[in-house]
Amino acid sequence: MARAFGAKGVFIEGEDTHLIDSIKKATEVWGGSSYFKVETISDGKSLVSQWRNKGGITIHLTMYGINVCEKIKELSSFEVPLLIIVGSEKVDSWYYHNVDFNLAIGNQPHSEIAALAIFLDRLYKGLELHYIFEDSKLRVIPQEAGKKVVKNG
Amino acid sequence: MARAFGAKGVFIEGEDTHLIDSIKKATEVWGGSSYFKVETISDGKSLVSQWRNKGGITIHLTMYGINVCEKIKELSSFEVPLLIIVGSEKVDSWYYHNVDFNLAIGNQPHSEIAALAIFLDRLYKGLELHYIFEDSKLRVIPQEAGKKVVKNG
Repeated sequence: MARAFGAKGVFIEGEDTHLIDSIKKATEVWGGSSYFKVETISDGKSLVSQWRNKGGITIHLTMYGINVCEKIKELSSFEVPLLIIVGSEKVDSWYYHNVDFNLAIGNQPHSEIAALAIFLDRLYKGLELHYIFEDSKLRVIPQEAGKKVVKNG
Repeated sequence: MARAFGAKGVFIEGEDTHLIDSIKKATEVWGGSSYFKVETISDGKSLVSQWRNKGGITIHLTMYGINVCEKIKELSSFEVPLLIIVGSEKVDSWYYHNVDFNLAIGNQPHSEIAALAIFLDRLYKGLELHYIFEDSKLRVIPQEAGKKVVKNG
């Protein structure tokens, strides 16, 4: 999902071979392998600290944070790498106090996938929906009805 | 998720008691019960046909469709109820030929949750992120760091 909406890569805390396999498969067929990196990490907190030490910005998406609308202009102006943190389960309180921004995609409970999608759409101002991956094997030709997929190259 | 981002209700094809329970729980605590309807249906195709017969518009979100950017202005102008169709698995080809619009939130494979989130965000022009449900038991007070939740009323 993150790949389709403009993220440059993903860090996955803990082993999730099913998720990694499905990302690899999507990248092989639909492109982006030179562009989209997948890495398994054991300690998300170390990653956050390292990211900040190197001058990057860390953003935790949470329904308890400040509305994204209030911050998106500021975030769009940063020219350093952004690390976006979402949790599929309860996120340790450490993150709330050790990231640069806690941002809410609305203050209602919602899927972290939905939050990440809307965040990336706002950050990239919708341009990510027009991305073409040069190394894809297949390409969709948009249709009013039905499906049309062609081989690339 | 749909509830948090402005949908007025959801039809679920087939029995999914886990999903229905989790929606009910969210609505009880976070509000929207008078507003957000959940209904289980056995035949999604009949629903699409009935919806259209009553003058409503049906929209299927699919990576094979026309880019949402090209249609969102037209869709925002409709004053009839919109039925948005997403499939968690392979969607029967019938839908591609019997809905009013097949729309792509980008022509890359992605989560249907992500697609629905971005679609609603575009349709409601971001206003859905400020919704307050009057009947909620709890309410989040947005914080720069940490969590603050208060009882309503």
